[in-house]
Amino acid sequence: MSDRDEERLARAALSRLAEPGDPRVAGVVAELGAAVVRDHLLAQRGPDGVLADVAARLAAVDPEGDLTRAARLGVRFVIPGDPEWPAGLDDLTEAGTVASRGGIPMGLWVRGRPLGELGPLVAVVGSRSATTYGESVAAELAAVVARAGLGVASGAAFGIDQAAHRGALGVAGATVAILACGADRAYPVAHRKLIDHIAETGAVVSEAPPGCAPTRIRFLSRNRLIAAMSRGTVVVEAAARSGALSTANWALRLNRPLMGVPGPVTSAQSEGVHAKLRGAEAVLVTSGADVLEMLGRPGEHLTEPARGPARRRDRLTVREQQVLDAVPVGRGAGADSVSRAAGIGLREVHGTLTALAERGLVVRGDHGWRLGDTARE
Amino acid sequence: MSDRDEERLARAALSRLAEPGDPRVAGVVAELGAAVVRDHLLAQRGPDGVLADVAARLAAVDPEGDLTRAARLGVRFVIPGDPEWPAGLDDLTEAGTVASRGGIPMGLWVRGRPLGELGPLVAVVGSRSATTYGESVAAELAAVVARAGLGVASGAAFGIDQAAHRGALGVAGATVAILACGADRAYPVAHRKLIDHIAETGAVVSEAPPGCAPTRIRFLSRNRLIAAMSRGTVVVEAAARSGALSTANWALRLNRPLMGVPGPVTSAQSEGVHAKLRGAEAVLVTSGADVLEMLGRPGEHLTEPARGPARRRDRLTVREQQVLDAVPVGRGAGADSVSRAAGIGLREVHGTLTALAERGLVVRGDHGWRLGDTARE
Repeated sequence: MSDRDEERLARAALSRLAEPGDPRVAGVVAELGAAVVRDHLLAQRGPDGVLADVAARLAAVDPEGDLTRAARLGVRFVIPGDPEWPAGLDDLTEAGTVASRGGIPMGLWVRGRPLGELGPLVAVVGSRSATTYGESVAAELAAVVARAGLGVASGAAFGIDQAAHRGALGVAGATVAILACGADRAYPVAHRKLIDHIAETGAVVSEAPPGCAPTRIRFLSRNRLIAAMSRGTVVVEAAARSGALSTANWALRLNRPLMGVPGPVTSAQSEGVHAKLRGAEAVLVTSGADVLEMLGRPGEHLTEPARGPARRRDRLTVREQQVLDAVPVGRGAGADSVSRAAGIGLREVHGTLTALAERGLVVRGDHGWRLGDTARE
Repeated sequence: MSDRDEERLARAALSRLAEPGDPRVAGVVAELGAAVVRDHLLAQRGPDGVLADVAARLAAVDPEGDLTRAARLGVRFVIPGDPEWPAGLDDLTEAGTVASRGGIPMGLWVRGRPLGELGPLVAVVGSRSATTYGESVAAELAAVVARAGLGVASGAAFGIDQAAHRGALGVAGATVAILACGADRAYPVAHRKLIDHIAETGAVVSEAPPGCAPTRIRFLSRNRLIAAMSRGTVVVEAAARSGALSTANWALRLNRPLMGVPGPVTSAQSEGVHAKLRGAEAVLVTSGADVLEMLGRPGEHLTEPARGPARRRDRLTVREQQVLDAVPVGRGAGADSVSRAAGIGLREVHGTLTALAERGLVVRGDHGWRLGDTARE
């Protein structure tokens, strides 16, 4: 078997083993390669293995069978290095984690046309409980963007998402549905026909293998893919604490343009968008033409996003974040203890701790390593 | 007669003589004082006077009578140095001219309570042909602002203006109507009762003496006063080329916070506001609370306004602008010719030309002074 096939099988196995967006797995795979990680984990089988249960689950996975069954469903497994792998996903290494999700996916399970044929993508997202105003603006904006040759990425949900997909489909444009469940499934079920239609003319994508059900954590992981696969993200409507803002925040963490469509200040469905505009995190767009102008000159219009106090931690790589998360806050702990807690080898933990210490994020005291003051900002 | 009375009479006379916002008059008065300018102009009477016609008109003005008649109408004439003179107006010296209007007014003709008692002002302006949405947002926003102890400044026009005044009146708050016609008159006539009500509880203000009719140039001049008398300006609704944007632009020239209320992108009445928000010239506000937050920390939220290519000229004082306007574009002219064209003394024109030449705005060539390349930007 070629190294490439080996890597694909290992990634397929890890994709089945780990939850989408588990930054620990993404971190070690990015550094060691999937095959090494898989073999390393398998070696932990037996009563003395630190990760015996994980190793046992991994041993039970049948990646060849998974790929064959996926192919029968019209789903292929795209991994880094494949021609259609979206380069934008690689930026996730530097984008940190949110709610313990982050990192580059093991691969994408794709149903539909090659992703490279669907043009650069722009994400058009928003509330599920959208207003008639929001849905009509989303559809019109998506149509203009799709007519200009860009693909419209969204999450196939009710409300703004479906309006965005339909807007693109209506002008025979490309659109990509990025799902929290397997690419063979449909969620919401009422969008079965819409999702199948998208798979025929565009693509349906998921980080989770075929058959997987949508879960809350998978929605959160999915939102980072919508932002990372797109050149920019447009939020059409979002209430104050809407889930659509999680996609918006991923766009900011990825340093991609975030755009917001304003609405009446009397509409709760525009509150979240107005907050992003008011904080100068998002740029106001009123039409597809505004979006095209914005993306045509990337960065030019983009104001430096106003970030919260978590900033210093945000700048960490996934691996650094993992180690930092394993360092105790109060009394210190030895590097071996941190290594165990992080599930990362001792030698590498040593190197990472030293790097973090240089930035004041961890401190070496009498009792070992503990969190530095700046890490608590 | 005291110097102060002399100055007041001279300003009253010039207020009657010159059109509101004539930057030439404002410029010389700011430098020489009103009494000197008046005497200087009167000396030009007779067939040989350069400004014989102006001098003749000035001689026919009866400032004592004007002040007495104004007092009978309940109107007083407030000049720089008076306790109730709004300090913000003095910033107009540095704010340049727009459409040949600019500079500090000769004085304000005021009907109503002392301006100093009406709290710091915030301007709430917008389209005359406002939507129901815009009017209700303006009224609510004005009410919140007025309840917090600020006065609401506006222009007493149909639409947003009247909604803003009524919002403040509705909570027994202070409001100031700044008119393009005399403070004794009412424009629009349908707002006679509203304007009288404002004079009773707040103040009605005009740069034009009592009896003056509203003209287009007086509306343009008036807009600069709304912005200059206020700590910040809120545009609630404005179509793409709405007159309300002229007040907005004055706020920017004065480096005061400009705020905009978003609306549906499908509403033409929000287009002008969205353009200002999109260009980061205005900050998005959704409520009176947002306005208060903005003004409570002046400047903190204000992004550097994106200005057009006219920028270099904008930085000039009124006097420099006048001289520059009198310098020919092509073949040069002598300083005496510039002096005549600008209506400014030769000695001062010399000094100003030298200052302008240092900045490349004028060039001294074989045939005298001509416009530099940078002045045409």
